[in-house]
Amino acid sequence: MDTLNIAILGCGTVGGGVAQIISEINNDLTARANKKIVLKRIVELDPQKASDRFNLPLDLFCGSGKELTNEEANRFVQEIITAEDIDLVVETIGGKSDFVYNLCLDILNSGKHLVTANKALLAERGEKIFEAAESKNVKIGFEAAVCGAIPIIKTIKESFTGDKVLSVSGIMNGTSNYILSQMQNEKLEFETALKMAQESGYAEADPSLDINGGDAGHKLILLIKLAFGIDISKEDLSINGIENITKEDIDFASEIDAKIKLICYAKKINGDIYATVRPMLVKNSNFLSEVSGATNAVRINNKYSGIHILVGKGAGSTETAMSIVSDIIFIARYGDKIQNLSAKQQRKFADAREFVFPYLITFHTGNIPGTTGFIATAIGKQEINIETVSHNRHTGEKAMFSVATMPCTLGQIENAIEEIKKEKPGMLLSEPKIMPILY
Amino acid sequence: MDTLNIAILGCGTVGGGVAQIISEINNDLTARANKKIVLKRIVELDPQKASDRFNLPLDLFCGSGKELTNEEANRFVQEIITAEDIDLVVETIGGKSDFVYNLCLDILNSGKHLVTANKALLAERGEKIFEAAESKNVKIGFEAAVCGAIPIIKTIKESFTGDKVLSVSGIMNGTSNYILSQMQNEKLEFETALKMAQESGYAEADPSLDINGGDAGHKLILLIKLAFGIDISKEDLSINGIENITKEDIDFASEIDAKIKLICYAKKINGDIYATVRPMLVKNSNFLSEVSGATNAVRINNKYSGIHILVGKGAGSTETAMSIVSDIIFIARYGDKIQNLSAKQQRKFADAREFVFPYLITFHTGNIPGTTGFIATAIGKQEINIETVSHNRHTGEKAMFSVATMPCTLGQIENAIEEIKKEKPGMLLSEPKIMPILY
Repeated sequence: MDTLNIAILGCGTVGGGVAQIISEINNDLTARANKKIVLKRIVELDPQKASDRFNLPLDLFCGSGKELTNEEANRFVQEIITAEDIDLVVETIGGKSDFVYNLCLDILNSGKHLVTANKALLAERGEKIFEAAESKNVKIGFEAAVCGAIPIIKTIKESFTGDKVLSVSGIMNGTSNYILSQMQNEKLEFETALKMAQESGYAEADPSLDINGGDAGHKLILLIKLAFGIDISKEDLSINGIENITKEDIDFASEIDAKIKLICYAKKINGDIYATVRPMLVKNSNFLSEVSGATNAVRINNKYSGIHILVGKGAGSTETAMSIVSDIIFIARYGDKIQNLSAKQQRKFADAREFVFPYLITFHTGNIPGTTGFIATAIGKQEINIETVSHNRHTGEKAMFSVATMPCTLGQIENAIEEIKKEKPGMLLSEPKIMPILY
Repeated sequence: MDTLNIAILGCGTVGGGVAQIISEINNDLTARANKKIVLKRIVELDPQKASDRFNLPLDLFCGSGKELTNEEANRFVQEIITAEDIDLVVETIGGKSDFVYNLCLDILNSGKHLVTANKALLAERGEKIFEAAESKNVKIGFEAAVCGAIPIIKTIKESFTGDKVLSVSGIMNGTSNYILSQMQNEKLEFETALKMAQESGYAEADPSLDINGGDAGHKLILLIKLAFGIDISKEDLSINGIENITKEDIDFASEIDAKIKLICYAKKINGDIYATVRPMLVKNSNFLSEVSGATNAVRINNKYSGIHILVGKGAGSTETAMSIVSDIIFIARYGDKIQNLSAKQQRKFADAREFVFPYLITFHTGNIPGTTGFIATAIGKQEINIETVSHNRHTGEKAMFSVATMPCTLGQIENAIEEIKKEKPGMLLSEPKIMPILY
């Protein structure tokens, strides 16, 4: 029986989970791969900690288990890159630094397969990496990079090959979904919910990438490359986070039987791509509204087979590691025959102003009779049909209400708001908030 | 570029969908397969009808498009089996007759790959068919046999290879789920809902296999083989249908925040398999309760990656055909390297009496004071804790109420009922209904 020799770079939450699974069910993996699956060595700065946490023998770690300096670690990494006896490298260091970027290029250029959970790197600096894999005829597994345990990459790449993807959407960041769920269920303001999420381990000390939509954006970029074969850079993607969502927004959502979710959304319309990451009001009739806490969900609409939804754990140690180990088995089984991701096609993305959705617009105004009528009229003048106007929240001299529209473009709404500002300076006490409604 | 030549046997709803997809997106398929995908010919008794329905050229059909007698069709089928220029046969005739059974064996023995949606055949007579594929080193694709468009076969076989499946459950029959949803939403009795389902095309003229759990059972058998590597015959599987579900049952379910669903369920506990198909009360907090109408959903609980849910169309023409076409591409890509299903291991299945669940028991009794107390006491004597006793429905001299238990075995409940019958003959006006509760 052939052997597949593996090295793991970085033995933290995910890398350690990979080592653990490979150790615990090695016989199963070997039978499934029809190749002996051998974890040869691990490079990790603090081997003792990783060994204790994941129950791994110390002699698996480069340096015989002693703590490594960065220089020592680098030397071991270089040894692995040039090693004859390593077939596949698991990169679980993370980040898009030049160090990791060059490391991944070197791994591939040395003729080794690469399996990684590194969404930032592949989404933002993936082009040359996929090219290197292609030119060396080695494979890149990145199932773990998009929604942790959910096998969305292989599902699109191997199970939907008899179809055409029309749209991809979903809840792809567990931290922000956890925060929004807490705001919803416990009637909290954003800051309080964020602090609670940090205290209970659902958000990191620096939660920026999770709450500003950046992390979800990386995942959507990879799915757009995969589903539509189209290369998109982060700058082309319209991204909004959840930092500005308030208790009132959630309240307005409830009023129209919806929940606020950070939604990744990409749709192909007549060859154009509409793609965005932003908070949306998901109607309770839509399955995605049921996805609460740190769970992730991806919704695919296919030409022939209609709507598919995949729900699962978006993060976690063995959860994400499972996707990496499955990639390893897939490469062991099919090696050469696997088609790497190729998204060469460049495409102008539709401007966010052109996105057609029903929208909810929230207005802060003075408590002055005639305001609702004036605003509703301005919206109507832009050929936007109004679905419903919310109950008005009066507090002293201020008022707040929301307008749900029928499908229209964001541009139409922005034009209406410009008109209101021009005709009645001072009527709007702050910039109206505009969120798409997802049925 | 190599070519993969395909023949389709049976051009009805599913077979026609396959031909349609292969025609419509042939360039995409060829690029994905890295092989020219060629639909060489179709055997179908009524070519004109199929040609019109699926927009296919008549000359694709054996016999130059004229209607075929059974004898002519058989002759063309035999020609395809022996043909040098056919690499893969799509069997979409259906059923587990000797004719189809032998046909599939002959296809494989002639060295051709087989792709089929035939769950009855593979679940009940699959053993020799998978053996034939193994001995000839050809492949069987059967993604379409389990839950139509949901790619559950490839997900378990290719995406969960880094994990161990602990349990499989789900809603795998769209017809029965549609009927139960209608009963729930429109407050209908079973017979009325069935008639409506037949009128609107969701149920066939003979709906037996759908409503008696047989069809769902076939799917569960295939999933048990796949997920646990264990061979199970239909006789070993405890199967109950939805024929006896009443409006009152649905009412009792609502009272404990649950919906009645026909659930396929298989779980491995200490090496034993618990497997059943039966109506269960699915708590509204469980995602499966949200799956209504003809939609299917499969829930997998994995050792390392936790709970996954896949939702999609369980039937339909291009929906099911998509799974067949994706199987074709998978075989074109990976051929030899694919591992066929192998479930040789025989295992004694746990008796349904040993299943541990919380249960809901519905009692029909006389309207006599002390009845509830006596029954509750009898249940307690079997060491069963009671979670809640329902509001009692009195109608004249009769009463009806339900008892929700904490987790216990079906055997314990049956013992309690035996005791009641022995101690108070005549207290129970009919056999109590016992349904598991799924959280």
